[in-house]
Amino acid sequence: MKVIKFGGSSLADAKQIKKAAEIICDDRERRIVVVSAPGKRYSQDRKVTDLLIELACDCLEGRDCVRALEGVISRYRQIAEELGIRSSIADEIEGDIKHRISSAHLPEKKFLDLIKAAGEDNCARLIAAYLCQKGENAEYVNPKDAGLMLCEEEGHVKILPSSYEALSKLKERKSLMVFPGFFGYSPEGEVITFPRGGSDITGSILAAAVNAALYENFTDVDSVFAASPSVIRNPAPIRTMSYEEMRELSGAGFGVLHEEAVAPAWRKGIPINIRNTNNPKEPGTMIVSGKCGRNHPGIVGIAAEKGFVTMHVTKSLMKYETGFERNLLGILDEEGLTYDYLTIGIDNVSFTARASETNAEKRERIVKRIYTELKADKIEIENNRAVIMLIGQDIARYAEAAGKACDALTAEKISVKMVNQNTAEGSILFEVEEKEADLAVKVLYRSFFQKKERICLNRRNSNSRDFRAFCTKTPRGTVEG
Amino acid sequence: MKVIKFGGSSLADAKQIKKAAEIICDDRERRIVVVSAPGKRYSQDRKVTDLLIELACDCLEGRDCVRALEGVISRYRQIAEELGIRSSIADEIEGDIKHRISSAHLPEKKFLDLIKAAGEDNCARLIAAYLCQKGENAEYVNPKDAGLMLCEEEGHVKILPSSYEALSKLKERKSLMVFPGFFGYSPEGEVITFPRGGSDITGSILAAAVNAALYENFTDVDSVFAASPSVIRNPAPIRTMSYEEMRELSGAGFGVLHEEAVAPAWRKGIPINIRNTNNPKEPGTMIVSGKCGRNHPGIVGIAAEKGFVTMHVTKSLMKYETGFERNLLGILDEEGLTYDYLTIGIDNVSFTARASETNAEKRERIVKRIYTELKADKIEIENNRAVIMLIGQDIARYAEAAGKACDALTAEKISVKMVNQNTAEGSILFEVEEKEADLAVKVLYRSFFQKKERICLNRRNSNSRDFRAFCTKTPRGTVEG
Repeated sequence: MKVIKFGGSSLADAKQIKKAAEIICDDRERRIVVVSAPGKRYSQDRKVTDLLIELACDCLEGRDCVRALEGVISRYRQIAEELGIRSSIADEIEGDIKHRISSAHLPEKKFLDLIKAAGEDNCARLIAAYLCQKGENAEYVNPKDAGLMLCEEEGHVKILPSSYEALSKLKERKSLMVFPGFFGYSPEGEVITFPRGGSDITGSILAAAVNAALYENFTDVDSVFAASPSVIRNPAPIRTMSYEEMRELSGAGFGVLHEEAVAPAWRKGIPINIRNTNNPKEPGTMIVSGKCGRNHPGIVGIAAEKGFVTMHVTKSLMKYETGFERNLLGILDEEGLTYDYLTIGIDNVSFTARASETNAEKRERIVKRIYTELKADKIEIENNRAVIMLIGQDIARYAEAAGKACDALTAEKISVKMVNQNTAEGSILFEVEEKEADLAVKVLYRSFFQKKERICLNRRNSNSRDFRAFCTKTPRGTVEG
Repeated sequence: MKVIKFGGSSLADAKQIKKAAEIICDDRERRIVVVSAPGKRYSQDRKVTDLLIELACDCLEGRDCVRALEGVISRYRQIAEELGIRSSIADEIEGDIKHRISSAHLPEKKFLDLIKAAGEDNCARLIAAYLCQKGENAEYVNPKDAGLMLCEEEGHVKILPSSYEALSKLKERKSLMVFPGFFGYSPEGEVITFPRGGSDITGSILAAAVNAALYENFTDVDSVFAASPSVIRNPAPIRTMSYEEMRELSGAGFGVLHEEAVAPAWRKGIPINIRNTNNPKEPGTMIVSGKCGRNHPGIVGIAAEKGFVTMHVTKSLMKYETGFERNLLGILDEEGLTYDYLTIGIDNVSFTARASETNAEKRERIVKRIYTELKADKIEIENNRAVIMLIGQDIARYAEAAGKACDALTAEKISVKMVNQNTAEGSILFEVEEKEADLAVKVLYRSFFQKKERICLNRRNSNSRDFRAFCTKTPRGTVEG
């Protein structure tokens, strides 16, 4: 059996849902369907999850929520009407959401989770009803009934290991199951949502639990690309990549599948197939176990992201001071600064964090604490940094890829702030100035993917703020409802 | 005025001391002479400091110490005789050392410090007497009288800031001062020795205190070299380098001046000149402030050292766990493992330590703790690693040097385990397998220093265990007495 997951854009309206249904029905092995909440129908549109967050805020702040509620209900009602499903479904959805609103006395976080989860939950009901109407033996599966139990530890949501045993029973059902993504339940029966890439995680967990032959993840791009289409025109598609490569990509926060969505399938060795709902003939990208047989230097893609800040802390003879680095990490933990990369050298600790992790006040407080508590000699802060990653399972075992990349960057006089390669990881990291990031991606792409052709290199800064790599999926830190 | 320091090999016997005296008298600006204890006269010889340590151990363990005492005294007596100094000096030295032995009731560490310091202290008395005999207005200066006050914090010896004020008064003396290196006094009047590069540190402190025009450090090599003569035949001498470059070198533990010996002079901007007692016509190596006007990519040298171990700790979703890295550093601190380099990436922490820092038992304990306390997924240990460093003040601002180095290593199919470049440091680090380290140095040397010539590249493993870079000075961790 296969687990198939559809993202929000694949379920944004009746037209999209029809495409999804056709895909589902096209293969009898597709037995578990995981759904997101309806996404945007056009670029200025709003996702149902965003409408639900607005609704929850109105409730929490005691404002009149009729308009916000109507905004949500009308999306479902319109879909139901256009799909020609029995009209009672929209009333049921309205009743469900109103019932949730009545729990506004709950702690804020729990109430928000309860309301946000309504997006996926009701979408699953709707899709199940539509599939039934098409003559399928479809059923909506409630995550609580199925046993998807979650817990929250230090602000991070985890699946309770016993869930896998419970969820594996889904194999025995004969129906076509429609399962809402993005949330599960605490042992006390309260809704808990995943923080990032929500529905992708649900799909991966279910695929692992039922030991699926394949986990299909339908989105709105033909494949994962070797570089961001916002920087490289018509970048090469990636046909096959390893879990490790996907992990490097997603772990770096560069969109595509979140690392938490890769892990469950990876552990069971279940292949993941990224596909396009709008172009189902395309084979998409396969994420599989082991080597992918790429030629040296075996780069699978180039990821890039702007908006980083690097801090360099220097203290002479630092290494003779027991606990200096540990105390520094303690300050960062206490101040709630999460860094992405950190290196400790001779008398220097450098770390790179997303600018969104800090603000001027927080940064000032951290700098002050490092000076006063750790007696650092010097702290340098460099803003407007970009991180470029070359990804490929074996590239960090030799210096070939790094050499080629450095040469290409040097030829264009790009100032490279940091280079980091480690055999334990399947990537090489370069830090450059934000204004040179697009150019860096271009020269690297040309060097590794376009030997013979030349692409236009323009040192002019790209105005695009939307600088995500690979495919236009949810970036890290955004809630996918 | 200039501060001039002589190492142990420059004062090993009468012949060497005569050379040193000639150098001292050759320039009237040389007003403060810092001396080490007499070193080896030939390769199988023993340093006076080693003889003193043996003597101290005999005393502490209650053994008869007549033979060990005689070993020390005879070295001084022979030097005095050959220099033709008044014979009472040897008796005075004998009296001094016997007096020190009578303090065997002191705590072990204090007693050892007291005995070890006898090497420099008496050498200074001897040199002062010899210079007087040559007609100089020379005087032995006692570090306690001069005000060189030290303290020990967490096992690390530091100078008390008030010392500089006291030592600055030496400027007012009209004599030629002979100052013993390697030790100072606690405020309670007890001898404290520097742990590493002892006399070099004393010289640097004195140069800073009297605001010397130059700090001359006389040793037994013509200059610092661009690579180790044990790997590269006739490596290029380094004429000028910056403090930062020297710091990178010494901070990495690659012999030459210890970083603590660079810091005091650096802070006051006093140039350091490394010279050869046996070839004083050679200009040696100047270590100065600021840029050294090297051409791109501006490599000053290649340092290499074998005997490292790298551990890679992997834990999926590590970054969502507050304190994981901090707790890992806590385990390393508790187990007393000092690492040289550490990087934290997506879900991986890798650190490189000297193999001498660990043994199988310690390593096993650390691995066990990381698995049980931190629930790591995987720990990989890689033994027999070598660290190669390209050093140059500005090389880490661009990728040119890194690219050239990676290309050169790739051409010889050298497996590169780690690459680390950070603008905050003036070096680029490569980790390779120990058996490929010599080859790596050769290809890098050829690439950066020998464009036109070819050197013999031999993949065969060098048998030399003595793989220190640049010049044959005291390696890190060794006591220079």
